[in-house]
Amino acid sequence: MTWVRDAVGSPYGTHNLPYGVFRRDGGEPRIGVRIGELVLDLNAAEDAGLILAGGALRLPTLNGFLALGRPQWTAVRERIVELLTDERHRPAVQPLLTPLAEVELLLPIEVADYVDFYSSEQHAGNVGQIFRPGQPAILPNWRHLPIGYHGRSGTVVVSGTPVTRPAGQRRSADGPVFGPSTRLDIEAEVGFVVGVPSAPGRPVPVADFAAHVFGVVLVNDWSARDIQAWEYQPLGPFLGKSFATSMSAWVVPLEALADAWVPAPEQDPSVLDYLRDVPHLGLDLRLAVDWNGDRVSEPPFAGMYWTPAQQLAHLTVNGAALRTGDLYASGTVSGPSRDQVGSFLELTWGGAEPVTLSDGTRRTFLADGDTVTITASAPGPDGTTVALGEVTGRILPAPAGQDGAAT
Amino acid sequence: MTWVRDAVGSPYGTHNLPYGVFRRDGGEPRIGVRIGELVLDLNAAEDAGLILAGGALRLPTLNGFLALGRPQWTAVRERIVELLTDERHRPAVQPLLTPLAEVELLLPIEVADYVDFYSSEQHAGNVGQIFRPGQPAILPNWRHLPIGYHGRSGTVVVSGTPVTRPAGQRRSADGPVFGPSTRLDIEAEVGFVVGVPSAPGRPVPVADFAAHVFGVVLVNDWSARDIQAWEYQPLGPFLGKSFATSMSAWVVPLEALADAWVPAPEQDPSVLDYLRDVPHLGLDLRLAVDWNGDRVSEPPFAGMYWTPAQQLAHLTVNGAALRTGDLYASGTVSGPSRDQVGSFLELTWGGAEPVTLSDGTRRTFLADGDTVTITASAPGPDGTTVALGEVTGRILPAPAGQDGAAT
Repeated sequence: MTWVRDAVGSPYGTHNLPYGVFRRDGGEPRIGVRIGELVLDLNAAEDAGLILAGGALRLPTLNGFLALGRPQWTAVRERIVELLTDERHRPAVQPLLTPLAEVELLLPIEVADYVDFYSSEQHAGNVGQIFRPGQPAILPNWRHLPIGYHGRSGTVVVSGTPVTRPAGQRRSADGPVFGPSTRLDIEAEVGFVVGVPSAPGRPVPVADFAAHVFGVVLVNDWSARDIQAWEYQPLGPFLGKSFATSMSAWVVPLEALADAWVPAPEQDPSVLDYLRDVPHLGLDLRLAVDWNGDRVSEPPFAGMYWTPAQQLAHLTVNGAALRTGDLYASGTVSGPSRDQVGSFLELTWGGAEPVTLSDGTRRTFLADGDTVTITASAPGPDGTTVALGEVTGRILPAPAGQDGAAT
Repeated sequence: MTWVRDAVGSPYGTHNLPYGVFRRDGGEPRIGVRIGELVLDLNAAEDAGLILAGGALRLPTLNGFLALGRPQWTAVRERIVELLTDERHRPAVQPLLTPLAEVELLLPIEVADYVDFYSSEQHAGNVGQIFRPGQPAILPNWRHLPIGYHGRSGTVVVSGTPVTRPAGQRRSADGPVFGPSTRLDIEAEVGFVVGVPSAPGRPVPVADFAAHVFGVVLVNDWSARDIQAWEYQPLGPFLGKSFATSMSAWVVPLEALADAWVPAPEQDPSVLDYLRDVPHLGLDLRLAVDWNGDRVSEPPFAGMYWTPAQQLAHLTVNGAALRTGDLYASGTVSGPSRDQVGSFLELTWGGAEPVTLSDGTRRTFLADGDTVTITASAPGPDGTTVALGEVTGRILPAPAGQDGAAT
């Protein structure tokens, strides 16, 4: 048991230990690990010789540590557990703990390429019905490969960063008009952080997932549905998504999720060999979406059609190399019922069926000033719970001068 | 006139002076500028105090220099011209020149985000006819906004890098099959290198193009048409493009292209205000595509429907920030006639109309061992020519084990 008394029984106990980057009083970014409501300064721990990581914990992002690979990730994790559980280390380690309330959390990784998949059958089906009425909701390729696309890595921001309402073109009866998006939405997703790169021309087999992927984050892929609907054919989403993508400040290492693997949904038709993962496992992450503090949805990640290992194998099967810091997200997580969907597009069925929040307001898409917070939990060892998250963001109004001025 | 005698009359004279990164004998990467068939070591020039750039020329990529902005780009360029034209500098500068044949050229920039547009009306029309027969070739949004998408920045490679044939899923009469692409293609494009970043939430107006964009490269956006055709709906191209994108080793600064601006095609319907550039100018770059040494096409960049300034304004109008090292490409450059198209998809009309090369072989898409080289020239000052390029690549066979083994 940890000597950090407040962390006993916490979903951020020594069975979790997610990594992040923080700073105090506007100082230099430092790598830390979360224990309860405290952050352990790993930079200082390495400086003091308490952890040996070849300097990888003295950097301003996690990327150097991410590049080390699973054996060293596991070794460092075991050492941190030792430091936090063995009373003999307490005198040296306690001074390196800071309350979370006293630090600022920064984007933990330098994002290399950002890929977003589309791997929930319920989400793809719902969006298909809303965006392409009268046509088959699920396209013929969807069950044969994990559909995905590249997003903008330069606009991935850390949880808590305000999101400015984007302006852009949208369809109207009189042709396209310009102005702030009127259908600003969320997408509740799970992201996978790549640590170990791969060589060009060398596909990563499904079995090598854990050798490359360091850990898991929560992602909110903010989406302007009106901009997206007008622009997305034939080359896919662009400005409807590229203004901001939020990720949680804490990266939960795969080691913490060892008890969360569950059989993934059966795939029919059967998949091509390079996508065959035996056993075929998904992660039992239970997401929750809070809209201005009201719980509006609880998307179940375990039901995703394509698994993270299949996504990684697909992403690289053409020989595309991975880099340290690559981030790939699952796509919106939606379950079969309306209170399990990961977007407001689905929650309000394209805006046709508003929801009433506890303050009495009726909502379809996001209003200025709204806050959305996505959290998640997973089963941990011995009946414990592992918390992921949070990823939160508040909507700021579009800048003056964009409000239809350019139409 | 330059004292570098061999560079007199060269399209790489002192009116051009593109920037790149090179190394000798496997040594450290160094920034250089090309003059004729020589490279001037700018790292050494800054070390020697011949150029003052605050250390930006002593780095392993151009990114530090790119971040400086137009006034300093212009000042450094003027100083280089002075060093190469004033005989008094010759004793100090001549030792810093190395024949191109003795150096290895490296990827000159660390690519931040890579965006690819689709701005040739002829190309979009041709592809629409080939990919979506029986439907309108040009989609309703195309004339209202420069359609684009994000590509994979981690697989942008320098000219000369061999390209391994990608494997992936493609459609067959019996459902999807896996194997090496059978329709491997090129896309001849022009790329724009962003130097000065922009703040999140602050769109870059068309008029600020030259304050942010440092210069121009040639791009070959290798494309596996069979993979692309099967995967691209509804989220756009992914594995059909992400295996490799080649760019030229030399970045031509905008200053060298001052005489190449020409009126761009009239746009009808008229564009929304944020896309209105007055004057509405494109670049008169004349591309050439050589397939195993045979000139098969000469795509004219001047005819592109959307201009680079419009593309930049569109890319940022939703508030997406620019970073130093962002690269955006024009999309395939195709003119109205068959000998002006920028892809083999168009040259052979989807493979239905093979071309005969001078060695007597009939070709549709790329065979293993094929080499494609794209070059370009533009009008320079006083009747001179500015050369861009080249971007070249040779196709290597797919690795053993991918040849249908996984079907």
